[in-house]
Amino acid sequence: MAYFVHLKTHSGSRGNLTVIEREIPFPVKRLFYIYGVDDSVRGGHRHHTTIQAAICIAGSCIVSNNDGILKSDYSLDHPSKCLILEPKDWHTMHHFTKDAVLLVLASEYFDPNDYIYDRYQNN
Amino acid sequence: MAYFVHLKTHSGSRGNLTVIEREIPFPVKRLFYIYGVDDSVRGGHRHHTTIQAAICIAGSCIVSNNDGILKSDYSLDHPSKCLILEPKDWHTMHHFTKDAVLLVLASEYFDPNDYIYDRYQNN
Repeated sequence: MAYFVHLKTHSGSRGNLTVIEREIPFPVKRLFYIYGVDDSVRGGHRHHTTIQAAICIAGSCIVSNNDGILKSDYSLDHPSKCLILEPKDWHTMHHFTKDAVLLVLASEYFDPNDYIYDRYQNN
Repeated sequence: MAYFVHLKTHSGSRGNLTVIEREIPFPVKRLFYIYGVDDSVRGGHRHHTTIQAAICIAGSCIVSNNDGILKSDYSLDHPSKCLILEPKDWHTMHHFTKDAVLLVLASEYFDPNDYIYDRYQNN
């Protein structure tokens, strides 16, 4: 099931600095960021193996998740809110604000065979 | 000496996705992002060991670098421009736009003893 991790942020007169070091449950092998999204829906899959950590580091978006039993929506609206998505978490990302930048950290290198597009029956 | 790596970006009707996988010369142990900077100057150090990769994934900023021999300014103004900073690169970051988010990936966990604040003599 998806869950939030709170990231430490150092704020001062020179701005803000948010750190990810040992707060997430995997070493980062790949990362990507999504930006310039209109009213589209992104994602729409789960994984065999990959664990992910998603942070909206500018603007905001919604992650809708289904782990096969529970369905939940998560608001990613602050650079310190990090959503952990486990392999079984079938998720979409939507309602991106115009300025949104969604950073995603992944536990594995890209492998098209690791993606499962079929929805759960409760979807 | 600092140098740019160009990151692959997939652009389409659903927005843009920029990936970092094997393009940078180290595994990512730590990452942080800096945002909400006014007219301040950030950084002002080099390292014993840490290699870094810096990308302005929203807005823009300037990185001024000095490797002890050469001094250069680098404009980070696109999410696909990734600046590699080697341990000997004494650098500052400045001229952040209001919307700037500077993502920095690091090859080592945080260790205060890895920081060298003294400027080079040519500075």
